[in-house]
Amino acid sequence: MNRARFQTFDDPSHRQGAARIRALRDALRTVGLDGFVVPRADEHQSEYVPPQAERLAWLTGFTGSAGTAVILAQEAALVVDGRYTLQAPAQVDTAVITPVPLAETSVAAWVGAHLRAGEVLGYDPWLHTPDGVARLERAVAKAGATLRAVTENPVDAVWSDRPGPPAGAVVAHPLELAGEAAVDKLARVRTALAEAGDAALVISDPHNLAWTFNLRGGDVAHTPLALGYAIVPCEGRAALYLTSPKLSPDLRAALAPHADLHPRSAFEDGLAARAEGAARIRLDAATAAFALKLRVEAAGGVADLGPDPITALKAVKNAAEIAGTRAAHHRDGVAVTRFLAWLDAQGETLTEIAAVEALEDFRAAGGLLRDVSFPTISGSGPNGAIVHYRVTRETDRHIQPGELFLVDSGAQYADGTTDITRTVAIGAATDEQRDRFTRVLKGHIGIARAVFPKGTTGAQIDSLARLPLWEAGLDFDHGTGHGVGAFLSVHEGPQRIAKTGTVALEPGMILSNEPGYYKTGGYGIRLENLVLVEARAIPGGERPMLGFETLTLAPFDRRLIRADLLTPEETAWIDDYHARVRTALAADLDAVTRAWLEQATRPIAAPTEGASGA
Amino acid sequence: MNRARFQTFDDPSHRQGAARIRALRDALRTVGLDGFVVPRADEHQSEYVPPQAERLAWLTGFTGSAGTAVILAQEAALVVDGRYTLQAPAQVDTAVITPVPLAETSVAAWVGAHLRAGEVLGYDPWLHTPDGVARLERAVAKAGATLRAVTENPVDAVWSDRPGPPAGAVVAHPLELAGEAAVDKLARVRTALAEAGDAALVISDPHNLAWTFNLRGGDVAHTPLALGYAIVPCEGRAALYLTSPKLSPDLRAALAPHADLHPRSAFEDGLAARAEGAARIRLDAATAAFALKLRVEAAGGVADLGPDPITALKAVKNAAEIAGTRAAHHRDGVAVTRFLAWLDAQGETLTEIAAVEALEDFRAAGGLLRDVSFPTISGSGPNGAIVHYRVTRETDRHIQPGELFLVDSGAQYADGTTDITRTVAIGAATDEQRDRFTRVLKGHIGIARAVFPKGTTGAQIDSLARLPLWEAGLDFDHGTGHGVGAFLSVHEGPQRIAKTGTVALEPGMILSNEPGYYKTGGYGIRLENLVLVEARAIPGGERPMLGFETLTLAPFDRRLIRADLLTPEETAWIDDYHARVRTALAADLDAVTRAWLEQATRPIAAPTEGASGA
Repeated sequence: MNRARFQTFDDPSHRQGAARIRALRDALRTVGLDGFVVPRADEHQSEYVPPQAERLAWLTGFTGSAGTAVILAQEAALVVDGRYTLQAPAQVDTAVITPVPLAETSVAAWVGAHLRAGEVLGYDPWLHTPDGVARLERAVAKAGATLRAVTENPVDAVWSDRPGPPAGAVVAHPLELAGEAAVDKLARVRTALAEAGDAALVISDPHNLAWTFNLRGGDVAHTPLALGYAIVPCEGRAALYLTSPKLSPDLRAALAPHADLHPRSAFEDGLAARAEGAARIRLDAATAAFALKLRVEAAGGVADLGPDPITALKAVKNAAEIAGTRAAHHRDGVAVTRFLAWLDAQGETLTEIAAVEALEDFRAAGGLLRDVSFPTISGSGPNGAIVHYRVTRETDRHIQPGELFLVDSGAQYADGTTDITRTVAIGAATDEQRDRFTRVLKGHIGIARAVFPKGTTGAQIDSLARLPLWEAGLDFDHGTGHGVGAFLSVHEGPQRIAKTGTVALEPGMILSNEPGYYKTGGYGIRLENLVLVEARAIPGGERPMLGFETLTLAPFDRRLIRADLLTPEETAWIDDYHARVRTALAADLDAVTRAWLEQATRPIAAPTEGASGA
Repeated sequence: MNRARFQTFDDPSHRQGAARIRALRDALRTVGLDGFVVPRADEHQSEYVPPQAERLAWLTGFTGSAGTAVILAQEAALVVDGRYTLQAPAQVDTAVITPVPLAETSVAAWVGAHLRAGEVLGYDPWLHTPDGVARLERAVAKAGATLRAVTENPVDAVWSDRPGPPAGAVVAHPLELAGEAAVDKLARVRTALAEAGDAALVISDPHNLAWTFNLRGGDVAHTPLALGYAIVPCEGRAALYLTSPKLSPDLRAALAPHADLHPRSAFEDGLAARAEGAARIRLDAATAAFALKLRVEAAGGVADLGPDPITALKAVKNAAEIAGTRAAHHRDGVAVTRFLAWLDAQGETLTEIAAVEALEDFRAAGGLLRDVSFPTISGSGPNGAIVHYRVTRETDRHIQPGELFLVDSGAQYADGTTDITRTVAIGAATDEQRDRFTRVLKGHIGIARAVFPKGTTGAQIDSLARLPLWEAGLDFDHGTGHGVGAFLSVHEGPQRIAKTGTVALEPGMILSNEPGYYKTGGYGIRLENLVLVEARAIPGGERPMLGFETLTLAPFDRRLIRADLLTPEETAWIDDYHARVRTALAADLDAVTRAWLEQATRPIAAPTEGASGA
């Protein structure tokens, strides 16, 4: 391999605490603050943030994707959700900062209980939404204290080697892949603005920026975002304010007819000018910083907090995006199948990291690879039971016989985004492992085969992925599926298959289907394909119905399937799916891999006589 | 029959409109109002209201259980939900009042669009919640008009023969049925108040009043409510303010140790006294009238709008309530089984009304019957497809061969409340009818057999009732299940099995399980049992799990079951259930009915060779 890989394995944690927090406290005192809130957030409330926004990791050592530290004069807390209750205490200096599970105590509740009357708590209005500030306000008021917005973030003042702003190349996303010209997308956005009675929309979500203007950037890892803002007026030209100056000529040419380009530094004045005359400005309640609301109101405008209409438009993929996504999944299926065949041929010396590297190399070999869509989760044995495990040099281990190996990975191709999880038996599996694997597979098939009326939400079908586990007194503690973008974020809303999935599923939406089972200290199982919502015509049916087309193409480990636990319909589904994988990929595989795939996709055998399940 | 029946069949509609609305408009002018809002509501936001609160029906002729009229000087609208979009235009004079579907236009939206700037819209603050008033306020403000609370309802001024206040007997609900003394219930309520930081709770929901003080009344039809209020202070004696003066001596004796009794007329002064000194008073956001908030605030108190903690306590039944409910279901099962056997023996002269009367008579014969729990839905052929059909002398029809007959009925026994729906074939059924019936039954069994983790909400399992219909492109447009009280309301919250069922199910909750299928103009199918949430121990399971015990005991019409569409597990469930019904009821049936039940509960035959389903 000559190319540098997208994924690295250094332990990014450095157990910070005492010295840096002491320096921050000194800085706070000089500006009259008794405390400061440090969320894991950038100015766009994104999941992936540029290095210069990793203030929480720099200050505390905690590298999770979500969390908030509150630094007071005598105490400090790091509030994290259930994914990070083990990781947080392992990464931070607990002598100076106390990890707090979000399930027990919210940030606001911790502030309310620990801030003292008369104290002043600072926050950076660029790193909190108006809703988040309102929650802090209530907590601080209850404590008899004061909340104060800062104009300079005091963490930056003590972070001497803070990286500069990101400056990735920003290029045009070709119309043949985007499927709709920016000018047409803007027309649809303006219709939504007019209906809402807004004079303009601020696009604060970089995903929506990329989608609307058919551009892709390189400002953060794993997702092709160009950080910045746009202002889309109900009438007149749009204005883009991009952080990176590296815009390609073809993008400049494509934008010229309908948008003006500005540096990011001109944004606040542009926003103020647009807000003048009591203009009603839509701000995205999910991603707009409180600072935007302040700016609109200071200029005499009305901040109309609500959903960014682009979020819903972007979720429904057009024919070109779907075609690109299908091509990406074909390419990815070839890579993953080559990986799985290669994995089967390895001896006992294979490590988790070696597996990640091999998988990335197989993907790169297929062409059009722009990045991995997230750091691969490569968990053998007990590491597989850690839902958000990320292998480092320190945690790396040999994959051993008798273990299950869970690989959750994805790619950013120029034409689409993939996300796939397979769980593989290394050597002989136990009866319990095969029982659990089969139940997870039954749940996966329950979603894959589901037929449901138009208007059904993800919350309404989430249980279909869980029923076979529930019957055995088991469950898993994450959602069944998240939305996925088209050469954009691998985690995209608003569509979800989860208890909290309140949005109706619509044809053209792409989601993951990924039930799992995790035995702490033992093994983890997750089976994930991406699916596309499609209309379904049911003979004799009375209502418009929807279903899923499975996009992902790679075999499930049939050695882990207990055929006697499957219904005839489930057996037919897995056999049909495996036949589809075989037919689709065979021509693009070398002879050895093709022979392996033939074996791996044989029909599930009929149940053994007398060995019937429940 | 010497007894008067609980259900009557007169058409209560009288197509009012022109004259009464004209009189109201005259009255409005004299008090300076340009319009008035007339909701179908009493002072407790109850589903069943006393005759004196039926202002909407008196004014317009519309007798649905929910709806709101807005009478303006030149226009008038009646906003109704999907249940009543056909009934409303049939009952009101559409020349003077326009029926408006709620799905298209909310009351606030209609007001906002039709009220003119400068006009004054009146409302009765006893008939709206604070949330409802806030919605009206926003709409009226948007129209540039004014909203004004009246002190005397102008409808009452023109309703010359308005009934007086209800005066049903109020009696003690015996401790052996209630299972917990009022003093112990009050202690649990006070714990919740102390946790919320409230000085007192106003009980505005008569169901919660009945449950807390172990009393039952007769102020409204079909639900044993005594209308009135209570104030429960965090410390000190509770105060009851009851509308009816007819309290039994045993109730007076039972209440004496821990509560003071007052007439309803003393309530407002009592509330004002309790609110003095800036006391924080919890008002039930779901049922408290806006007038209560005004009164609390006028007296210097703080109105803390939130859930009445009693609603959640009442939903979880104790051992005595469950035992009473089981006894009620046994008694009801005997009555319904006698009815079904009798029905099978009738000729073609049977009418819908005759069926209702016979069913009520069978129930009365079993003893302890206090009322029907709602007007029986007795729908043959196309009438069965009207989800909330109520037979009248005008709509009554003969039940004919080749039709399905849907009977949804329930009873209020002294020891429990029942609700059951059966759908019966009259003569030979069509293949389509049997297919649909079997799919509804499969959905019913899907809920009955469900096993799910503690913490699961009704929304998460609602789809289990729909999957077999969805597979055929079908669905039904109502929730799968509602909560049920213990000798209280047949519609009780907060527990639900529905898209909107966001409350976690808990052991001791009682719900209905009632999927359906409706073919407009053809037939209706609904299969309803009540179920009790219970803890389930799963061998080898890892999590606390829950399931349902089916409480209702009566056979399903096995002539309508297509055995080939059932899985082995579904066949086993129906055979087990029928065996349980047979065993439980046989000793209490006459020989003819017992022989009929033997036939009706035979095991489902094995599928015919070669006639396998999907």
